[in-house]
Amino acid sequence: MRTERLQALCDGVFAIAMTLLVLELPVPEGSADLAHDLLDGWPSYAAYVVSFVTLGIVWINHHVLMDGIQRADRALLELNLLLLLFVAVVPWPTGLLAEYVRHDEQATTAAVVYGAVMTLMAAAFTLIRLYLQRQQDLAHTAAQPHLHAALGRSLVGPLVYLTGTVIALVSAVAAFAIFAGAPLFFALSGRTSRVSPDP
Amino acid sequence: MRTERLQALCDGVFAIAMTLLVLELPVPEGSADLAHDLLDGWPSYAAYVVSFVTLGIVWINHHVLMDGIQRADRALLELNLLLLLFVAVVPWPTGLLAEYVRHDEQATTAAVVYGAVMTLMAAAFTLIRLYLQRQQDLAHTAAQPHLHAALGRSLVGPLVYLTGTVIALVSAVAAFAIFAGAPLFFALSGRTSRVSPDP
Amino acid sequence: MRTERLQALCDGVFAIAMTLLVLELPVPEGSADLAHDLLDGWPSYAAYVVSFVTLGIVWINHHVLMDGIQRADRALLELNLLLLLFVAVVPWPTGLLAEYVRHDEQATTAAVVYGAVMTLMAAAFTLIRLYLQRQQDLAHTAAQPHLHAALGRSLVGPLVYLTGTVIALVSAVAAFAIFAGAPLFFALSGRTSRVSPDP
Amino acid sequence: MRTERLQALCDGVFAIAMTLLVLELPVPEGSADLAHDLLDGWPSYAAYVVSFVTLGIVWINHHVLMDGIQRADRALLELNLLLLLFVAVVPWPTGLLAEYVRHDEQATTAAVVYGAVMTLMAAAFTLIRLYLQRQQDLAHTAAQPHLHAALGRSLVGPLVYLTGTVIALVSAVAAFAIFAGAPLFFALSGRTSRVSPDP
Repeated sequence: MRTERLQALCDGVFAIAMTLLVLELPVPEGSADLAHDLLDGWPSYAAYVVSFVTLGIVWINHHVLMDGIQRADRALLELNLLLLLFVAVVPWPTGLLAEYVRHDEQATTAAVVYGAVMTLMAAAFTLIRLYLQRQQDLAHTAAQPHLHAALGRSLVGPLVYLTGTVIALVSAVAAFAIFAGAPLFFALSGRTSRVSPDP
Repeated sequence: MRTERLQALCDGVFAIAMTLLVLELPVPEGSADLAHDLLDGWPSYAAYVVSFVTLGIVWINHHVLMDGIQRADRALLELNLLLLLFVAVVPWPTGLLAEYVRHDEQATTAAVVYGAVMTLMAAAFTLIRLYLQRQQDLAHTAAQPHLHAALGRSLVGPLVYLTGTVIALVSAVAAFAIFAGAPLFFALSGRTSRVSPDP
Repeated sequence: MRTERLQALCDGVFAIAMTLLVLELPVPEGSADLAHDLLDGWPSYAAYVVSFVTLGIVWINHHVLMDGIQRADRALLELNLLLLLFVAVVPWPTGLLAEYVRHDEQATTAAVVYGAVMTLMAAAFTLIRLYLQRQQDLAHTAAQPHLHAALGRSLVGPLVYLTGTVIALVSAVAAFAIFAGAPLFFALSGRTSRVSPDP
Repeated sequence: MRTERLQALCDGVFAIAMTLLVLELPVPEGSADLAHDLLDGWPSYAAYVVSFVTLGIVWINHHVLMDGIQRADRALLELNLLLLLFVAVVPWPTGLLAEYVRHDEQATTAAVVYGAVMTLMAAAFTLIRLYLQRQQDLAHTAAQPHLHAALGRSLVGPLVYLTGTVIALVSAVAAFAIFAGAPLFFALSGRTSRVSPDP
């Protein structure tokens, strides 16, 4: 099966999830001091940027991975569906975090939910890499040597988010710092690897 | 007519319907016990997962079917539009089910509406298969023998959802179990058939 | 300039506008008689189906038209943007019509707004056809003879919607019947013309 | 890396952001004078048209730019992501402007936020041009001479929006006129340049 249409669905879900994030941004009604009310909504902007950048970097890494694949089987489609299930849900914990990050007690819950969704998303990505490593015939010949190297790096994602989720139980702010830093780390580590499947 | 753009519209509608489901997830305002309130929203998560997976599996089967088609005529476009009409509407009965699954009397109505939409979506898919079987010249030569085999299986979908809809009149929970199990059944039965139109 | 990416943006806007229509469907909160409340929302379902089918048929006709084009210039992109401006706005008059079709006095306003948006959308489509007739070098050689024939038919669309809009001033119900019948008419008249640009 | 999938994500985000703008249009509930209430919402329609046209023109210019590129590297993907971050957020300041343009004091804040988002979006576009000028090997040979000429024009965008943002501090209406005029200016100046990378 060709991978074009799989990529089309993935691109669609990523693009929509990234754009739906904007619905969480505050449009206060009848505000008497709009500047103050908007500045007051800073957790929404921070959460928007972090979730948008995270989804964007995951999309780039997915893009790079799929460029090395020459055909898809049904199991690969289903694993991608699992990834998309968590990608599509990201606007929800983003809204929770924006709403509750300043409410000390509830911030813990919001940060744990955010971390759990990200951990599951990262784990689904790792599952795709694990499957492709086992089914190397799905990949272009030139991309096959890269599948193994990338696998080790891919385990970092779920571990980082799992760590952030556990830390959220102690400090929501520290957890949020980890969630904000994670995509930068993934972008940097992605840069050092070969983007193109060509050797 | 080439099928690429038909597939692009289909991929778009599937991706958006799947991602809009997230708008049904609860973001309680000013909650004093967020963990409790979120756990209380479990029907929303269950409905999200079931509808997302159902649309995802329908998309995969649509993907496989369209891969065997080499060109589209206007009737095929119109039948696909009928399918998309029901695909796009899925977030609506999903929200109804999440809202009312625990309200004994209203749960029946919500489950019947959910089942009716799914029955119509599955029936539209069957209509597409019926049409392709009659217009075999639209298919790639290698895919033509598969059109007949797939047709029998395709009648299962509307029947399963029709059964679930009738059962909903007696028990909304039993109906929901059928709706949740249906995509797993379709995924498994899809696996046993040839994914590629190549013989 | 290649037309692929123009088609991608168009397909995206059509798919999203068609799917956003679902947000207008009623999900009553805390209903004591859900079946009654849902049946009470019949104008929403009717408006959903009519708008969805209208956009779908316009998309099919756009698809057929663009299949005959081999390259796009900036003016064609801008005319398509004008079409998309009205396509994207369709969920708004659809919501108005669903909300007010049963309020005698306000129904007139809602039907006029709906008709005006549809008239402008149809007129933008006609503008695209007019431009392509003047710039025949943008079309595939085989498609050029069809550009003229299609032009006459394309003038029908704006006239039908303009008539419906005027009739809305007298009877919102009669206008709605015209709006509902228009896509069926366009589908039928589209069928009788050549779908493929091949002679 | 091929640019097709980058374009697919961009097209998706542009299409969704443009279509989500419609959610800001007013659907008054239980209005006793719908015509009056709708006319009263004129800032929403003006803001819708201006934002839609702005995003559309930016999309066309992006389309033209990317048509001259033969491959993408990771840095180009990340710069595009930065552009999309601001594209996706446009419905938010559009809603603010529609809500507050008639509230004298708050209109300033809304216009400044709108201008700031547009300035950042235009600046991200300029960054992409600057990067492509430095990495000319990413472009098609025929498109390379055009990269330099386009760069000078691209600096105009951020400057126009920065000027509008500063003027907003004095007059929100004058700023809005600049924001409304900017896409027309970009469309006209785009017309005078070569659309196709072919010499």
